[in-house]
Amino acid sequence: MDNELVVIGYVRSSIKDRASAPKMEDEPGAVRARIEIEPAYADGLDTMRPGAKLDLLTWFHQSSRDALKVHPRGKEHLPLRGVFTTRSPNRPNPIGLHQVTVVEVQPPATLIVEPLEAIDGTPVIDIKPRKRPDRE
Amino acid sequence: MDNELVVIGYVRSSIKDRASAPKMEDEPGAVRARIEIEPAYADGLDTMRPGAKLDLLTWFHQSSRDALKVHPRGKEHLPLRGVFTTRSPNRPNPIGLHQVTVVEVQPPATLIVEPLEAIDGTPVIDIKPRKRPDRE
Repeated sequence: MDNELVVIGYVRSSIKDRASAPKMEDEPGAVRARIEIEPAYADGLDTMRPGAKLDLLTWFHQSSRDALKVHPRGKEHLPLRGVFTTRSPNRPNPIGLHQVTVVEVQPPATLIVEPLEAIDGTPVIDIKPRKRPDRE
Repeated sequence: MDNELVVIGYVRSSIKDRASAPKMEDEPGAVRARIEIEPAYADGLDTMRPGAKLDLLTWFHQSSRDALKVHPRGKEHLPLRGVFTTRSPNRPNPIGLHQVTVVEVQPPATLIVEPLEAIDGTPVIDIKPRKRPDRE
């Protein structure tokens, strides 16, 4: 398997470190942020429009990849759980999955999105349109 | 950046090839399937329960990674679009994002889930709980 990720772009955000980032994008502290797509991948944004609802996939490059059990939300009084039952950034493949809306498309290859809790410099690995409401 | 994915498990499904797979998991042809997690990652399933709604992330190992523009749903009469405005499996990082429900947890490390359109043998790279309804 060709299992090496390519970085298609980076998050540019006013959130500069993990300590000041909220846990989830719908919590206080998530911000409007820039997604700067690398020139080599700019064509992949063709027909992107403001208002688009996206699944934004990032790579939590500062996370530990060794944890298989974690305390939910980092709270040590909560019992340990398997990492696949949590959204902890510490996981074997530290992929972040964020639901964001495109506010603006800036040529040649920048998206302004909100709300996003990922820190400045977080690598972006994929962008997909959300195709329908979640069937919760 | 340490950007090499690890395979945490595999999809085991009655869908054996891409030609017979539906495009999306909510279309006819998606099935109940097994997710066999590798022994090294089994602890990550601790506290997983039937009924859990998951974001299942896979790696479309048979996809092309070179396409930046595609015909939506492979229909050549539809105009080309940037791949990041589609959910085509052909994309720079061919990550599949599937919304599934856990039907059964089989020790030591197998999940029965539905509905899933990924083919038999597809690598699994992450499992996350969906935390709330989509804000469409």
